[in-house]
Amino acid sequence: MSLKGKVLIAQSGGPTHVINNSFVGAALEARKYANVTKVYGALAGVEGIANEDFIDLSSATINNLNEVAATPSSGLLSSRLKPDAAYCEKVVEVLKAHNIRFLFYIGGNDSSDTVRIVKEFADKQGYDMEAVHIPKTIDNDLVINDHAPGFGSAARFVASAFAGVNLDNRALAGVYIGVVMGRHAGFLTGASVLMKKYPDDGPHLVYVPEREFNTEKFISDVKETYNKYGRCIIAVSEGIQDADGEAMVAKLQENVEVDDHGNVQLSGTGALGDLLVKLIKENTDIKRVRTDTFGYLQRSFVGVVSDVDQKEAREVAERAVQFALIDGKSGSVVIKRIGDYAVNYELVELVEIAAKTKLMANEFINEAGNNVTKAFVEYAKPLIGSNLPIIARVNAPRVEKIIKK
Amino acid sequence: MSLKGKVLIAQSGGPTHVINNSFVGAALEARKYANVTKVYGALAGVEGIANEDFIDLSSATINNLNEVAATPSSGLLSSRLKPDAAYCEKVVEVLKAHNIRFLFYIGGNDSSDTVRIVKEFADKQGYDMEAVHIPKTIDNDLVINDHAPGFGSAARFVASAFAGVNLDNRALAGVYIGVVMGRHAGFLTGASVLMKKYPDDGPHLVYVPEREFNTEKFISDVKETYNKYGRCIIAVSEGIQDADGEAMVAKLQENVEVDDHGNVQLSGTGALGDLLVKLIKENTDIKRVRTDTFGYLQRSFVGVVSDVDQKEAREVAERAVQFALIDGKSGSVVIKRIGDYAVNYELVELVEIAAKTKLMANEFINEAGNNVTKAFVEYAKPLIGSNLPIIARVNAPRVEKIIKK
Repeated sequence: MSLKGKVLIAQSGGPTHVINNSFVGAALEARKYANVTKVYGALAGVEGIANEDFIDLSSATINNLNEVAATPSSGLLSSRLKPDAAYCEKVVEVLKAHNIRFLFYIGGNDSSDTVRIVKEFADKQGYDMEAVHIPKTIDNDLVINDHAPGFGSAARFVASAFAGVNLDNRALAGVYIGVVMGRHAGFLTGASVLMKKYPDDGPHLVYVPEREFNTEKFISDVKETYNKYGRCIIAVSEGIQDADGEAMVAKLQENVEVDDHGNVQLSGTGALGDLLVKLIKENTDIKRVRTDTFGYLQRSFVGVVSDVDQKEAREVAERAVQFALIDGKSGSVVIKRIGDYAVNYELVELVEIAAKTKLMANEFINEAGNNVTKAFVEYAKPLIGSNLPIIARVNAPRVEKIIKK
Repeated sequence: MSLKGKVLIAQSGGPTHVINNSFVGAALEARKYANVTKVYGALAGVEGIANEDFIDLSSATINNLNEVAATPSSGLLSSRLKPDAAYCEKVVEVLKAHNIRFLFYIGGNDSSDTVRIVKEFADKQGYDMEAVHIPKTIDNDLVINDHAPGFGSAARFVASAFAGVNLDNRALAGVYIGVVMGRHAGFLTGASVLMKKYPDDGPHLVYVPEREFNTEKFISDVKETYNKYGRCIIAVSEGIQDADGEAMVAKLQENVEVDDHGNVQLSGTGALGDLLVKLIKENTDIKRVRTDTFGYLQRSFVGVVSDVDQKEAREVAERAVQFALIDGKSGSVVIKRIGDYAVNYELVELVEIAAKTKLMANEFINEAGNNVTKAFVEYAKPLIGSNLPIIARVNAPRVEKIIKK
């Protein structure tokens, strides 16, 4: 272990509830090492690095950092910029200028690709450094990882939302559609079922991007469920697509917003839910049809968090620092499940994670493509954490009618 | 106290997080009295009474009832039916047949009107009974009451949502519009500010139905805020209206859904948020504009509740039973604030509450009509309860730039 210099930590992509646990876990661990001269945080991801927008975390109090760890969203701010080679050259120039020898970058699969490019560029230039990608994403779509930090807390939010909506819909019956984040992977939408308790609890139907969305099948599913229960709760991924792979939401909107990567805007609009309500109203006799789009609440709502997720987000970052500082290695830290329930952290090559997307396993989706399976529930249940809220129905005998007996 | 007979409890209107605290509070209190022969619950409000759909709460366990109390939404199910005189005649006929001498009806201002009509009808028929209205509404729009049970928990949800969105929006800047429940009263939308901590925290703009919504003023407010902070978070009531009193959401939709009372459907659609996003995009250069409609999550989300609200929802119902059983009185129980923070419960005539709507006081809304005041924060803060989540920013010094200094 000959490298001596500064540590730099940055956060990237969509915030999660526990991403600050990772940043603080890395910072506190890094402050322990004699060959670490300073621990910096970059403000706003890779843009903060290129612009030298650094804060000195060596001078932050432990109490402040622990309070930040408990706070959702990216305390070091974030960026959605996808740097090209020229940008990465600038980044490496800054790292050199500040003698930053250890880079820890918290993000999803796009971010791991950024780390890979920066590390390769530094290697080419002969600049000695270690770069480690720390995983996070509420989408849970990182390959090799059993699951990603951030997913468990978002899943707990979605499960709690549907548990409440189920109680509400039971009191005032109708059809309810909850639209959940997820462009390609349906893990978070699947989490809608995790707090079901009674046999007739909703959501009764779950649609994920991994299966073709067929409007006729959808309408017949809704009718069948409504006839059975007198109500129907539906969880739907914002990214559901038709047989041609076109996003359902794009079929509706007049002005489709497209980002730098050519992706249609899915979040931050109620369009998909309203489309599905219209479909049901036009094709059934059901009058009360409602929709909510959970949107940004899923990844930032304060006060709803999985303790398991919090602990893992911190551990994965502590291990990232140990891999770089003790073992002198670069790579991406992955979470492996080694028991029911226990995990282990391993380091893999950046190229194994970078820019790849994991989808739900076939065994997690039912044959009809309108619900998740028991296997999914077994997989996801431990991730939403402990101390789940109480949900109970009145258990009392019916009274015999006197007038209409 | 000569009346001897059964107690009947029912829940009506939109569910709240703590409405089961009231039902359970009434049931457990009523089970103590020697002149109460049975304690019944009606399933689905006034419809359950007319149809004799009763369960016998005398045979429910204390543990079961306490678990139900902790569960959001109406455990006895609910109804939106507004009974006419003929319907109330049927109701009184059922009460007579079952020898129900004490009616406790948990609901908003429409429900208090139902209690009034039923009680007047019973009086006319010479049927001796007491009827007490127990308040609840997330809208907080009951007259005479300092606040209504259900509001505090919904307010905590809204405050937590905006606190999270503020952190998210700080990490990835843009304009964000959160649409909050509230047709006529803006209390719940005002609650969006209750967990602000730092001076530049959002929401930066708050629009309530009590003030005319002017689109030009709105756009200039957004521009001004965005120029100042580089971002802008907006809380908006679903019921905001233009100068002519027309709901903004009605101006947009092709097919406006209208209920039995002639009210335009506001909840369960993302239409208003999408309209406001379009307004901003068409009239400014701001690119990232997002909206969420919090919808049903506000009144039913499991796990986010105000402990103050829970306690009061239970107490108000216990007192309702005491007013009827000990004092032999009918009426509506109201909450009065008697300290900072303490409350008292009083009984008023049903006619004083029935079918009246309280709006936000003038002193709760700023002069520009685009925010709430300190007076509102002082009023509402105690209601969202204790143990609020930690929110903290990193407190660390900036690092001097080397390349771009």
